[in-house]
Amino acid sequence: MFLSPVDVAMLVRQRGIRRVLREMTEAIEEDFRRWSEFDKSPRVANHSPDGVIELMPVSDAKRYAFKYVNGHPKNGLRNLPTVMAFGVLADVDTGMPLLLSEMTLTTALRTAATSAMAARALARKNSKTMAIIGNGAQSEFQALAFAEIMGIDTFRLFDTDVAATHKLIANLRAMGLTAVACESVREAVRGADIITTVTADKTNATIITPDMLEPGMHINGVGGDCPGKTEIHSEVLRAAKVFVEYEPQTRIEGDLQQMPTEFAVTELWNVLNGNATGRASNEDITFFDSVGFAIEDYSALRYLYEEATCDGNVGELPLMPLLADSKNLFGLLRPANADRELIRACDSANPPAERATQVVRNQLVALHA
Amino acid sequence: MFLSPVDVAMLVRQRGIRRVLREMTEAIEEDFRRWSEFDKSPRVANHSPDGVIELMPVSDAKRYAFKYVNGHPKNGLRNLPTVMAFGVLADVDTGMPLLLSEMTLTTALRTAATSAMAARALARKNSKTMAIIGNGAQSEFQALAFAEIMGIDTFRLFDTDVAATHKLIANLRAMGLTAVACESVREAVRGADIITTVTADKTNATIITPDMLEPGMHINGVGGDCPGKTEIHSEVLRAAKVFVEYEPQTRIEGDLQQMPTEFAVTELWNVLNGNATGRASNEDITFFDSVGFAIEDYSALRYLYEEATCDGNVGELPLMPLLADSKNLFGLLRPANADRELIRACDSANPPAERATQVVRNQLVALHA
Repeated sequence: MFLSPVDVAMLVRQRGIRRVLREMTEAIEEDFRRWSEFDKSPRVANHSPDGVIELMPVSDAKRYAFKYVNGHPKNGLRNLPTVMAFGVLADVDTGMPLLLSEMTLTTALRTAATSAMAARALARKNSKTMAIIGNGAQSEFQALAFAEIMGIDTFRLFDTDVAATHKLIANLRAMGLTAVACESVREAVRGADIITTVTADKTNATIITPDMLEPGMHINGVGGDCPGKTEIHSEVLRAAKVFVEYEPQTRIEGDLQQMPTEFAVTELWNVLNGNATGRASNEDITFFDSVGFAIEDYSALRYLYEEATCDGNVGELPLMPLLADSKNLFGLLRPANADRELIRACDSANPPAERATQVVRNQLVALHA
Repeated sequence: MFLSPVDVAMLVRQRGIRRVLREMTEAIEEDFRRWSEFDKSPRVANHSPDGVIELMPVSDAKRYAFKYVNGHPKNGLRNLPTVMAFGVLADVDTGMPLLLSEMTLTTALRTAATSAMAARALARKNSKTMAIIGNGAQSEFQALAFAEIMGIDTFRLFDTDVAATHKLIANLRAMGLTAVACESVREAVRGADIITTVTADKTNATIITPDMLEPGMHINGVGGDCPGKTEIHSEVLRAAKVFVEYEPQTRIEGDLQQMPTEFAVTELWNVLNGNATGRASNEDITFFDSVGFAIEDYSALRYLYEEATCDGNVGELPLMPLLADSKNLFGLLRPANADRELIRACDSANPPAERATQVVRNQLVALHA
């Protein structure tokens, strides 16, 4: 099965984005609660001067998922997305891929769903106002997930790029949400119940400083997500209770990279399972140091796979060869018989071969007519 | 760009498989000679009771490649290939994928090309006869690569599955090669200049024992390629000079896994570059402990990409979103404007959007007409 960005956009629009964010939040929480069932490994990164390309694999007893994702801050100059991604869901018993999907849009959805899931466990229940620092490609998804899951009704926005803030305001107002442009980070966060930081610069920034903190705040730190890229002053981390996805990865990639190795953090799945305490009082400051973890992609891919299967009529991608005899791979190339082999494999394929394969089949049939 | 197994099969058949094996051998050798330019890492494996799924990434300053590959020995029972694969070639400067290709067929081609490249550097120049132990999906590719690169004209075959041997004989005779079925491993290897072992059982086998060795033999060990899967008796390794692709990986995965860590081996790229000696005399026994390394996939993918680009008329896969504004990913979902955004992005896409995207575009245009 293949899902392009248009396919995923259509799937989301048919259901409504708020419903999809809610269902994806539940899917991720369900998988976080069975954390120990997953075979987890740190992501594999290839760094270059302008960016990074990463592979993020994870599996349980039934399914395997991985995501390919890049991070190239200068891509905006070429009008390419900074972050682009695709992923695969596969069957563990045979190794056969079940789904190849775009994950640029899907990563934005699952990141926002994960942020909202964390806030539901950590933020004050009566939170109504959220500051969003960084108004780029991810920001609408964050706002809608917090509106849907946390009931946030007012968004206070700041970005160094005023055009990005205007874009965000227009998109949020079209969705019926209240959004206010602010002159500074300080103005945006004043009185906010929740602060979301989601900036793109690959630098050690201190966007949120200790003097901005107010009792009971929850900070959702999304943009500090790779070595050398942080957003939050270290004293903010010391003033807060810090929660992470997968500690070994966040120590390297999160705002946590600033802290000594003995600095204590709690893995979020323990809070979701009731093994650890989240917020102890309405005065606690909680910080979710989000970097993105492979289980979130697994959850998003299995959700898309289930939904697209329900919808039916999805595209197939001929990624693996159709063979009449699994030991005769060479049959695809044998000059005299190859065409007949292809035609037979195509005709006996179940589910039916993808259109591109049918086109080739028909060409070959015509050639030998 | 997208290449299905049928696309790759067509590309190979148009050129002739022997030419493709030769050109792929040269591409791999070219990349092995610039070994130090690559950012290499061990592959990432997720193991399950019935098999393994692996990701193999590698990059140089210009391009990034990875392969997804499984190994499920019981897949034959379901008439699925034991090994299935696909891969991606991407641009390092932007992280944008250039090519998504099937790699089941391509892995068979690049594995055979790598074996032939190693034999060209290590085997006796006047080699004429090769034994092939294991007559499954990979065996024809090995035979043709050795015929093309080494001038091997006689193949002596053995497999515990007689039907597999008959299939291999039929395929080789159709290609004009001499192939003889043997009753045992011992009979097959007697007098052979080169021995290729390419069996599928995930077990610690000793298919080749020291008493079978003759002076000057070259052993091309292909099937001992993951932990717990070996083919060659340890005394054969002690009697031979042993060559590997990437030592850290082969210590874990190759027949080398049987040997103590101080057992000396030579990385093949050093022989190709003239930094190390291969065969010192016609009496030496040489052993290439092949496990498959990511650079070989990189070479194969760049070869396919260049060839398919020359051919033109290749399929495009809409894997990444087309955005009018890279910061407005949400524009794909905004109810009122999303359709117009999709139509505009599709119309302004360069190269033109893939047919599937065009179909969606036309649906949307019709919807709003």
